[in-house]
Amino acid sequence: MKTARSASGAHTLPGKYYTSQEIFDLERERIFSQRWLCVGLVASLSTTGSYFLAELEGESIIIVRESDESIRAFYNVCRHRGTQLCHEAQGTFSRHIQCPYHSWTYDLSGRLVAAPNMEEGVDFHRGRFPLHSVNIATWEGMIFINLGSKPEPFEEAYASVLTKFNRWGLSRLVPVHRTEYQVEANWKLMVQNYSECYHCPTLHPALNKLTPYRDSENDLDEGPILGGPMRLSKGSQSMTIDGRACAAPFGHLDGDERRLVYYYVMFPSLFLSIMPDYAMIHRLIRRGPRRSTVICEWLFDPEAASQPDYDPSRAVEFWDMTNRQDWHICEQSQRGIDSRAYEPGPYASLESMLAALDREYLAALGESSNGS
Amino acid sequence: MKTARSASGAHTLPGKYYTSQEIFDLERERIFSQRWLCVGLVASLSTTGSYFLAELEGESIIIVRESDESIRAFYNVCRHRGTQLCHEAQGTFSRHIQCPYHSWTYDLSGRLVAAPNMEEGVDFHRGRFPLHSVNIATWEGMIFINLGSKPEPFEEAYASVLTKFNRWGLSRLVPVHRTEYQVEANWKLMVQNYSECYHCPTLHPALNKLTPYRDSENDLDEGPILGGPMRLSKGSQSMTIDGRACAAPFGHLDGDERRLVYYYVMFPSLFLSIMPDYAMIHRLIRRGPRRSTVICEWLFDPEAASQPDYDPSRAVEFWDMTNRQDWHICEQSQRGIDSRAYEPGPYASLESMLAALDREYLAALGESSNGS
Amino acid sequence: MKTARSASGAHTLPGKYYTSQEIFDLERERIFSQRWLCVGLVASLSTTGSYFLAELEGESIIIVRESDESIRAFYNVCRHRGTQLCHEAQGTFSRHIQCPYHSWTYDLSGRLVAAPNMEEGVDFHRGRFPLHSVNIATWEGMIFINLGSKPEPFEEAYASVLTKFNRWGLSRLVPVHRTEYQVEANWKLMVQNYSECYHCPTLHPALNKLTPYRDSENDLDEGPILGGPMRLSKGSQSMTIDGRACAAPFGHLDGDERRLVYYYVMFPSLFLSIMPDYAMIHRLIRRGPRRSTVICEWLFDPEAASQPDYDPSRAVEFWDMTNRQDWHICEQSQRGIDSRAYEPGPYASLESMLAALDREYLAALGESSNGS
Repeated sequence: MKTARSASGAHTLPGKYYTSQEIFDLERERIFSQRWLCVGLVASLSTTGSYFLAELEGESIIIVRESDESIRAFYNVCRHRGTQLCHEAQGTFSRHIQCPYHSWTYDLSGRLVAAPNMEEGVDFHRGRFPLHSVNIATWEGMIFINLGSKPEPFEEAYASVLTKFNRWGLSRLVPVHRTEYQVEANWKLMVQNYSECYHCPTLHPALNKLTPYRDSENDLDEGPILGGPMRLSKGSQSMTIDGRACAAPFGHLDGDERRLVYYYVMFPSLFLSIMPDYAMIHRLIRRGPRRSTVICEWLFDPEAASQPDYDPSRAVEFWDMTNRQDWHICEQSQRGIDSRAYEPGPYASLESMLAALDREYLAALGESSNGS
Repeated sequence: MKTARSASGAHTLPGKYYTSQEIFDLERERIFSQRWLCVGLVASLSTTGSYFLAELEGESIIIVRESDESIRAFYNVCRHRGTQLCHEAQGTFSRHIQCPYHSWTYDLSGRLVAAPNMEEGVDFHRGRFPLHSVNIATWEGMIFINLGSKPEPFEEAYASVLTKFNRWGLSRLVPVHRTEYQVEANWKLMVQNYSECYHCPTLHPALNKLTPYRDSENDLDEGPILGGPMRLSKGSQSMTIDGRACAAPFGHLDGDERRLVYYYVMFPSLFLSIMPDYAMIHRLIRRGPRRSTVICEWLFDPEAASQPDYDPSRAVEFWDMTNRQDWHICEQSQRGIDSRAYEPGPYASLESMLAALDREYLAALGESSNGS
Repeated sequence: MKTARSASGAHTLPGKYYTSQEIFDLERERIFSQRWLCVGLVASLSTTGSYFLAELEGESIIIVRESDESIRAFYNVCRHRGTQLCHEAQGTFSRHIQCPYHSWTYDLSGRLVAAPNMEEGVDFHRGRFPLHSVNIATWEGMIFINLGSKPEPFEEAYASVLTKFNRWGLSRLVPVHRTEYQVEANWKLMVQNYSECYHCPTLHPALNKLTPYRDSENDLDEGPILGGPMRLSKGSQSMTIDGRACAAPFGHLDGDERRLVYYYVMFPSLFLSIMPDYAMIHRLIRRGPRRSTVICEWLFDPEAASQPDYDPSRAVEFWDMTNRQDWHICEQSQRGIDSRAYEPGPYASLESMLAALDREYLAALGESSNGS
């Protein structure tokens, strides 16, 4: 495989990017309110009226299936006194969304259709009080929202990968397991951790046996979407607790693709991992400069369930172990970076993606150089 | 009954009034350090030396019966090294208040009467170190303090209701039950919740059956004390779990008064609710912009205990259920108002009291208009 | 004994010194990053490679025995990505300190001796990335660090006591018990509490019986190290639960010294207490303006263990009880000082050491007078 792009003397970011509340707030304005953020899976909304709440960036967003063709997103805020409309994390609306305080009622397109005891007139028109909607897009079975007022079209933001995974048929997959992790670390430490395998021999001996850390290649090495494949070692079929596949390989893969595992960071907060027989997504939710939630979901072809060797638990167990190793070291990094003694350190060439991420990050933040 | 005063196109307050620490601090300076605040009941201090601590606005205040005629209030702070004098929430002093650190000793009027190892002289005179006293007033069996240095006389602040409840004989009542609630919401959301019954059909079906929400009238509809009566429905005797009275009606009420329930907000932090057979007070304690404590006490005529049908538990159960419904929706409102999507919404005419409260509030804060 | 130096009309510090985050941060800069801070005992590091972590002032410092002669201190921060190198509070390195993330490896003198996958060249030289070291000193068996870049030499800072305790042989002593206390109070309240026995008759009746509060003398009464002896009452042998010694007196003491207990504050955060038969140190760790940790260790001559009457539990029990009484009153002082009603109060002449401490403190902070 070709050599990874060199880190060219690049250094880690100054400590303030991992510790400052001011930077955290600026990231909200410049990054998390501008970029497309994955909030879950189309497969989670099976029928008209099905909804779940996306809780991120201090907001609660209702993601609801309006009809077979349409999924909508609304702020979970009544237009009357501001009350949250939904309290349960997921459920099904019976065609209307009703506020539990004074029964203001909206349809699934967000229109206010009933407001008891409000007289229509010069002071009040129902038509002026629809739910505040949020931009939405779907791709490969995933739902994305954008909190900005004039977002970059999703197709432009994701241009580099729009059709890249067609042969895997990711949109067919359904989640079979979900785990939520609370991590005492800045979100970028998880992004960086996901973006290099320099740490694999030390931290993940089991993983490193399945995919030796030097057998990797970044086929996307600049911009908001970064990553590439790693090669399975001889005798390994997939990323599982024993290296055996837990389902048949996806149908349309060629021989070489069945020997590769693909890892991509979709900046800022989605990781997409594609094994020959299943996929996995990690979503990062920021809670503070030093606190994040990671939601990990394991996705399988629904037809795999009828295969004789189907056993997702070995995939779940493998990655849950690996996840915990990663989050623990991210927490140890956070504590070290909190020290007055921390200063930017040198990236290895195996960390070239981290340098690329830092460039993307600083540019998004509107900061031209890696200065402290 | 006459129509409620119109809300005239008024809107809810901008979000900052419910979320900002700066506003919270300004409220302390302009409102909670200026207005008379109810801290409890005269009936709780039965003998000379009886005391309780009022913990509010970051202060601990000793409320103590100095003599049969006099109740006093002092900051719970020793004049020597600043130590809190009392630790227990209530108790009885044996004629003196002694600091547990170095035994400085004060009498019940606050005078320093002993300071061991302090030599009287040019550097020290006992007479210069009395406890810091707090302004105090009593009315209808309730104790009020004022943290300001030159408070408006209580009789002026409460002029509109000073003799209004004479026939109910409220000062005779004693507390038979007390419940403390922790609520994750701004104090004003509870005040507003208490001040309208527009939400009753949706949130309180049991209450709405006893007092249908449109049978209400605000006899005080501008200023710091706001409220009025609601009419009991046919077949209902009081606000209890089954609508039956739990004591005989207060002695001096006329026939129509026995069919009414009176609700008043004493701005900023006291609610007075008067049923034909018992009364209830709610006191709000602010803990932060998004956090409050509510102390609710149920008051009965001490002679009611000997009546055959006496059963305060049905009143306690009814209001405890209603309180919890209210605090829960206030918490949901807080979360919605925390959203970037929140913006002031239109008040219904049934919410005219909320518009009046907002006017009183903004004027007290020294802000002329409802601007964001 | 001679009279204590008079407090001369001095008053306690203004409240801000006990409550302000800004002052807390300034104390870090001007005091805790300038002064020598005791972090533990030489006896805790028995062999080459033994280490413990000193967690203080938001930093984690590795204290490690490099060789028989040398103890070293390093920031617990890898020079690569900033990760904390050690997670366990104490342990033993097998001659190297290895980062758990990417296996960068340092020797016990802090030199980077291995950095896998880093190419030596223009961008990277191992010699440029040693661990960040911290100034260290030892005295009387105690280890001190200094977080400043150009610290005052330890021998100058401790000049007034450098040889003062030679006859006690403190460096021979070993810790036999350790208790950690969490206290909701500013660190200075504990320093002040330790520095006067005016409170002993009220708060510590048992202690006051062993060493009556007026039988004290400050032999160091100005500067950063303050204190002196108290005299044991007739019939008392040491500070224990029943007044009997729990070990033989230290060997080289003269008759009068066996009747004295010595108490010294080593400003800012060490208390040294020396009984005729054992010693005790308290170390304060600041957590916030209103929150501290106190670590208390009881030290005995290792040969005492073979004495027939050896029983350290009576010393531990006595001081644990006394400590809890003290921390509780410090918490009550903190709460009182938080009040708007707190104002500086007059020191008694028995509190002359507190006035001296306040002078030392304000001078260290760079504030010339006790102004609010």
